[in-house]
Amino acid sequence: MANASFRRLAVLGLGLMGGSFALAARTRGMSHELVGFDPDAQALDHASTRGMIDQAFDSPVHATDGADAVILAAPVRANLCLLESIHSTLAPGALVLDLSSTKREIVRAMARLPGSVLAVGGHPMAGKEVSGIEAATATLFDGATFALCPTARTTDLARVLSETLVGGVGAHAIWLDAAAHDEAVARVSHLPFLLSAVLAQVAAPEGPARILAASGYRDVSRLAGSSPTMMLDILLTNEQPVRAAVSDARASLDELDALLAAADEAGLRRWMERARERR
Amino acid sequence: MANASFRRLAVLGLGLMGGSFALAARTRGMSHELVGFDPDAQALDHASTRGMIDQAFDSPVHATDGADAVILAAPVRANLCLLESIHSTLAPGALVLDLSSTKREIVRAMARLPGSVLAVGGHPMAGKEVSGIEAATATLFDGATFALCPTARTTDLARVLSETLVGGVGAHAIWLDAAAHDEAVARVSHLPFLLSAVLAQVAAPEGPARILAASGYRDVSRLAGSSPTMMLDILLTNEQPVRAAVSDARASLDELDALLAAADEAGLRRWMERARERR
Repeated sequence: MANASFRRLAVLGLGLMGGSFALAARTRGMSHELVGFDPDAQALDHASTRGMIDQAFDSPVHATDGADAVILAAPVRANLCLLESIHSTLAPGALVLDLSSTKREIVRAMARLPGSVLAVGGHPMAGKEVSGIEAATATLFDGATFALCPTARTTDLARVLSETLVGGVGAHAIWLDAAAHDEAVARVSHLPFLLSAVLAQVAAPEGPARILAASGYRDVSRLAGSSPTMMLDILLTNEQPVRAAVSDARASLDELDALLAAADEAGLRRWMERARERR
Repeated sequence: MANASFRRLAVLGLGLMGGSFALAARTRGMSHELVGFDPDAQALDHASTRGMIDQAFDSPVHATDGADAVILAAPVRANLCLLESIHSTLAPGALVLDLSSTKREIVRAMARLPGSVLAVGGHPMAGKEVSGIEAATATLFDGATFALCPTARTTDLARVLSETLVGGVGAHAIWLDAAAHDEAVARVSHLPFLLSAVLAQVAAPEGPARILAASGYRDVSRLAGSSPTMMLDILLTNEQPVRAAVSDARASLDELDALLAAADEAGLRRWMERARERR
């Protein structure tokens, strides 16, 4: 691998995202050496056994030591802790890229890294309802949009290196501001999950409902199966934009209920047409 | 077609459902003769040209004349009007089966048909987001659950004949009470549509949201594209169960908002786990 872009790539957090990133990086020979950390010994063992990584570490500090690229692939709040842990181990010129679903808090924390370190906030728009390293695949990011958010540690070189990583796992990079990212995903990603969960709670199919549930129910309730641990981190690090989206959803349901109570045909039709047009 | 089950099958309403029913009945040789009615001349013409029906009528009364099986395949409230129109044309022993999405009002109206007529409420759990006869296919009902609801005109013979029709188009019959049906579909069918429409209204993807919208948004917002005319009929003939479901959805969002405002981790986790378990 004489022409690998990196000498030593460290993946911290070996679940669906981290495992898939390691597999994709390995498949495309992006790094001379690939090392990994996870607090779960079974995940570490799985990554080693499947040949996703060359070396497994039970400490993020040891995994990061000597790495020129570090991927933070844990849930958002765990990534914030990892960033604290590796703060003084990072080599000058090393690039840190995270894969978290919300970006404001990570970008703020990255600004506190030593001035010699490069750091970019990242969010690949790829995933599955299943989580864990067993579900990892080398093709998870193929063709996916990969949001990149600049930080106080994003130099021109950091841009080039992070784009190399993104392209290297098969995704295409889109640069945008962390606040704009978080506002947008609150509505196109977190709200779909929450409405899916609302449906699952309210429409629990039992009795006749079980027999009558068709593809509409299945499609809309699918996201309710997402990992609660991951979603909890997302909601708690994006509270304000999520609450604004939830508030708009409640207003829409309130309007609907008033229209139904009044059997207002023209109003109901407008309510439905508004949804149809905006989709 | 010596062994066709019916002499003359009349399909009133030639859209996605009626057209598909006619095609499926034709393919399996279920009736010696197939005739159709639709208020839209273009739909009638399409059905004739594509060979879905042997004869096209611009009046439901003429189409029904001499039929031993009549399928009501218009939206719910149009079917209620059709039932009024054909009331005194129906031959003694003729079977009326409707394909409407809500059943209480239809079943109540069928009870007012002449005592010599057989009538069963039906609802095939099959559909598409596209509507209109152009989207009709002979396989739409293949393997689908087809709810059948008894009426005051459902004799043993009516049961046998309606099950023959249902099996004849490739679906499997499930008998259940109209009220139980309507309560169940309010939650597993109408609520998914409404939450999908709420998402489409609130998350209108433009700017960064457009780029970041992924499969979660697409799956949950898909139903928002359903025909407003069809959904309007459904909502207005199932108002009470739909409002109860909407009220439960609002309560779930209210609870969520309070948990977010309090950053109540344990409560948020329970809220998500509840959805995950019930799905």
